[in-house]
This record gives sequence, C-alpha cells and structure tokens, in this order.
Amino acid sequence: MAGRQHSGVHRLAVVGVGLMGGSLALAARSRAGVEEVVGYDPDVSALNEAFESGVITEKAGSAAEAAAYADLVVVAAPVRSIPELVEECAAAEPRPRLITDLGSTKAAIVEGLSPLARSIFIGGHPMSGGASSGARFARADLFDGTTYFLCTSGGAYPKLYEMLQTFVTEIGARPTHIDAEVHDRMMAAVSHLPHVMANILMEYAGNFEAGGRKAIHWAGPSFKDLTRIAGANPPMWRDIFLENREALAAAVASVSSGLDDFRRYLESADQAEIEKEISSAAALRKELLEHEDIAVATLYKVTARISDKPGELSRVMVALGDASINVEDLTLHHVSRSQGGDLVMYVDGEEVADKTRALLTSLGFATVVDFSGEALG
Amino acid sequence: MAGRQHSGVHRLAVVGVGLMGGSLALAARSRAGVEEVVGYDPDVSALNEAFESGVITEKAGSAAEAAAYADLVVVAAPVRSIPELVEECAAAEPRPRLITDLGSTKAAIVEGLSPLARSIFIGGHPMSGGASSGARFARADLFDGTTYFLCTSGGAYPKLYEMLQTFVTEIGARPTHIDAEVHDRMMAAVSHLPHVMANILMEYAGNFEAGGRKAIHWAGPSFKDLTRIAGANPPMWRDIFLENREALAAAVASVSSGLDDFRRYLESADQAEIEKEISSAAALRKELLEHEDIAVATLYKVTARISDKPGELSRVMVALGDASINVEDLTLHHVSRSQGGDLVMYVDGEEVADKTRALLTSLGFATVVDFSGEALG
Repeated sequence: MAGRQHSGVHRLAVVGVGLMGGSLALAARSRAGVEEVVGYDPDVSALNEAFESGVITEKAGSAAEAAAYADLVVVAAPVRSIPELVEECAAAEPRPRLITDLGSTKAAIVEGLSPLARSIFIGGHPMSGGASSGARFARADLFDGTTYFLCTSGGAYPKLYEMLQTFVTEIGARPTHIDAEVHDRMMAAVSHLPHVMANILMEYAGNFEAGGRKAIHWAGPSFKDLTRIAGANPPMWRDIFLENREALAAAVASVSSGLDDFRRYLESADQAEIEKEISSAAALRKELLEHEDIAVATLYKVTARISDKPGELSRVMVALGDASINVEDLTLHHVSRSQGGDLVMYVDGEEVADKTRALLTSLGFATVVDFSGEALG
Repeated sequence: MAGRQHSGVHRLAVVGVGLMGGSLALAARSRAGVEEVVGYDPDVSALNEAFESGVITEKAGSAAEAAAYADLVVVAAPVRSIPELVEECAAAEPRPRLITDLGSTKAAIVEGLSPLARSIFIGGHPMSGGASSGARFARADLFDGTTYFLCTSGGAYPKLYEMLQTFVTEIGARPTHIDAEVHDRMMAAVSHLPHVMANILMEYAGNFEAGGRKAIHWAGPSFKDLTRIAGANPPMWRDIFLENREALAAAVASVSSGLDDFRRYLESADQAEIEKEISSAAALRKELLEHEDIAVATLYKVTARISDKPGELSRVMVALGDASINVEDLTLHHVSRSQGGDLVMYVDGEEVADKTRALLTSLGFATVVDFSGEALG
C-alpha cells in the first residue's frame, strides 16, 4: 500500500460474524492491511465456523473481550441490539479506539448512547448485502463500489472519523458523510417503504380470490418484480421498521394518501389526473435511469492537495457531504509529512466537478479538475 | 395438422397491426393454417409496414372492410376504442363469423355492446406482451404457453367459442374460460394495482429530498424492482385503469387501508403485528413460488374421448373453467366423425388430474389419466 495513507487499523474486532461482519473481516485483512481480526458471536457454532474458515484470526468469549485493545470495533448485529453492544464495547478495558456499526438505521442508535460511547462511536451503513446469510458466504469484495454512509452525529473526535473513512476507502467502498436523521428519512423512502409496500401487495393479492380462483396463480412478471422482497427476514425487518418508525410512518402515510387521491380519480373517471399521475412517474423514473447512466458515463477527477494535519480529510469529506456532493470514488496518495498528500476524488459530471473545486478552493486546498475519460472499473 | 381438429379460421382480420395484432397474424399463418390475413390500422404507415414485411396478406381501408367475410376478426386496439370497433366490425356486410379482442379488461367491453355485436363477440386476453411496440417486433411465438383468457359473457353461440378456443390452442396459447367480471377483478389485483403502486412509490420517492439530497440517488435494487413498471405507457394505462376503475378502486382502497393499519402498528411500536404482517407476506410469497414450481414439475396428462357434436369441446372447457381447473396445455386429436376425438390436456399435479377426470366422467366422457413424466417444453 505504498503511496497511500493507512487507516491505522491494525487490530479489528467484529461483533457478529455473519455475511456482513465476515465480509468486512476478509476485506480488512486482504485490502486494508489489518493483521488481527478478533471475532465474537453469541452463536458459538457460527463463531467456530468463522475461525475455522479463516475469516477471523481469534475468537473472543464476549463483545467486551473482542473490543478490548481494538483499533476499530465493528458491531455487525441486528439493529435493535446495537446500542447495548456498543455500550458493552465502549466499557471494555483497555478501551477500543473507535466503534462503528453496519445497521440500516442510524438516528435511534446514536440517540440511545451514553456520552462515553458517543465519544468513540461513528455510525456506518454500507449499502450492500446479500440474499444469503452466514460467514460462509462472506466475500472480500462485498463492499466494492458501494455507497458507505458515515454518520458523525455522535460527537466522536474528527481524527477518528478520518480513520474510519480511510478504512472504508481501503475496503473498496465509497464513504459518504450524512446526518443520521437525513439518512433514516432517505432510507425510509427508498428502502424501508418499498419493503412495506411489497408486503402489503403480497398480502392483498395473495389472499384475493374471485369466482373460486386465486389471483396469484395468474401473477405475471410485473407482480413478481413488485413482490420479490415481500416477506424478507421477518425478525430483521421488524426491527428495522421499528427503529425507523417515525420516518417510515410518515412515508407510509404519504403513499396511502397518494393512493386515496388516485382512488378518487378512478371513482370520478378523471382522465386528466390519471394520465398526469402516470406521466409524472414516467418523468421521475427517467430521471432515476439518467442518474445511473451519468454515474458511469461522465466521471471527473478532482485532485486536492491536503496537509497531513489531523482532521484534514475529515474536514473535506464533511464539507462535501454537507454540500450534497456525492464522491463516486476516493483515494489518498500520501506524498510526505511536510507536503501533505493528494486526495483524488471522482465525481459525476462537469458541473459537480466545478462545484467541488470551488468548495475545496474556498476551504484553502489547491484543487485541479480533469475529465477522467473513462468509466470506473 | 393431420389428426388435429382445425379451428375453421381461413380468413382472419386483424384490426390494429401493432406488436400483439402482428404476432397473432404471424402465429395464425404459420401455426393455425390461416391462409388470408387482412389488416387495418388507422396509422397508414404502420399498415404499409405490416403488409410490406409480410405480416398481413391484404390491406383494408377501414375496420368494417377488414371484417367483411372474415371467419375471425381480432380487434387489437387500445381498450377504450374496442367497443366502437367491435360494433363497426359486427355491422360489416357480409357479416364476419366471430369477433374477439386482446384487451386487458373485459367487463366494460362486453357490457357496452349491442345485442347484435354480443351474439358474435367473445372477449379474449392473452397474458403476453412486450416492452416494444409495432408490427416490426411481431413474433409467431409470442403466445407460446401463455394463459389466454376467454370470456363468454357476451352470449355468443357455443360453436363460436369452440372455434376460438381451437384457434387459440393452435397458436400455442392455453385457453382458460373465465367470467368477464372475475377476470377484471383478478387483473386489478395482480396487474393493474401493481402498476398503480409502482407509480405512487416512484412519485413519492422521486420527489423526496432530505438535507438537500435526493433520495432516489441512493435507490438500490429493491427500489428499482418495485418501480420497473412505473410510468409505463401513460395513454394506454390511463385507459386500462379507467376501463377497470371499479375493481381497481376497490383494490387501491384495500391496500391503502392496509398501509394505514401498518402505520398505526409503527406508531404504537407494535412488534407482534409488524412481524405478523411480514411473516404473512412471506408465507404467501412461498405459496406463489411453489405454485410456479409445480407448474413445471408434475404435469399429468388427462385424455377424454369426446364426440364430434357441435359444442362438445366448449362444454368441456367451460366446465373446467368453472371448476377452476387450469389446463396447462390442450390438443384435440381428431379420430373420426363417428367415433369423435381424443382431447389431451395437461394439468398440474395428481389432485387436479383426479378432479379433472371425475368432472369429465360426470359429464359423460370416457377419461383416463397418465403421469406425463416430463415438463412441457
């Protein structure tokens, strides 16, 4: 890893050695120069399997035992158990440097922590996963190119943020700073709400019979697309829904009211409103597809010279996050202690590149923009 | 086609030469022994293209001109224009023998017809289609293995039903008799409602912003699955929604009320109800997938000897449809005028096969069941 800043994570603790925790352990060792990975799991056979298959290098008898001495503790457990596990890890002696999690919701976790835990906790949420569970499905490349949300709302020291951010970059993901509450509201809209709608549709159509026939026996590809995620992991999703219940209830209420409006258009045979509704969805879907196309078509490379002072990388990332600039990829080429390093970022489109340059220049960093001329691999 | 009953369709009229009408014309000529296909389309360039590419063998200047003399007229037009076109075709001189359509809704079409049109109209709805439109995408195999609903509610003579049913079998589809209103209510549940939900979700999430960020920029695979059909063909879907507005409004109301219940469970943090909702969706989705697996795994062959009297095939199919027996495939091997023919049907699973045999035996047909031992190709 010559020429790159190292995160400083030498000893990693993974609390919960399933698909996510196991993949993170593999990626940390093969890509981020982590030497020791100590694992803990309340399921002893899962823990033994992770150790025997080489996913972790040490076994611990408790979360606290795993966390002691660690540079970074990753709590990879169901969302509702996270706060308690974080507290337990934060109270370990010798205290770990930094604790993060992989939960799909963030605000409730951060809010529930003690001041001690908050000072060494930064929330994380990689937007990757898999249909299978268990360490035996773990893969070092699970996070490749994935948006990896980081929520600093807990009040951890900036240097810790920088450590986590570098680590996330090293394992192949794209760190994106976000406010915990904003994160949860966005996840409610694009992830949790679709799960709720899939469940409700499955339940309605699955129980629908007419003339002695079951409607789902004639389900076509559209119905299957909409219900592919219906009934996904009930205990896990129950907890995600509960943890994010405020934002999710607002999303559900809004969709329900949209359906009520649409029902009224049907009842009054309002052609214009019905067509407007479909056309509006068509325009938004076009926008979604175009955003995806842009992501691979017109990447610009923005290079900023930053000093080696603590918190500099963090300052840049927080500023970019707050300005809603989505960095597609990021690497730090370490030049020298006196000169600092080159932070290389890829962003979508010329406009965003110019905005990034202007922002970084205003923060005092020498910044240049190049057209990358190629899609990221 | 030796050994098979021929539908008796020699001259076919196709009103509307798009993807569906064009595919039906191709399948009719290559598989159903149809010699002449006369086409009409209000779009002259579409009509010329269909003629020049050999999809149709003759061009007509109006729907009535196409329909005159035809054994079978297929109205392949947007749902709301179907009743008027059917009337025009029914009034053609010399009168066509039978008129059918390919519309996604059935009850409103049948209800709106004059007694004359009703006497020679049978509604049809093949559950196939494509993302592309236009005769240049037409394919003779578009209907292969497709459930093809036939609605007799219009009051056409039984012999006409039998002609259409044989024709549908010849082009490769699986005729399924269904009541028009039952058809529409089922399509509301498994097809029209999913479209409405996809549109509403796209509109909600597409407009959702928090902390200056657009939620859809973080849309993952689940969101994309649920919105793949959002915004589909606005004028076409507006008409389908309007034609089926009563059944669809009931479906939308039910889902909206399901969402309201779920919102209340969230607001009161009701763990048990939330998990029950997900588990119930999981069980129904399992049922859906199992139904699909069965369809290819355990087909049984049911052979019934039926006489060559008019209406016999129709009697069998109506009885099977009314008993909710879904015939996966059907062929009629014509033995002789005095002895009748062997009607060979494939059905899902031993239980259904036994039910089919019992039903056909009770109708007076000598019937045998074999395990087919293989999936249909």
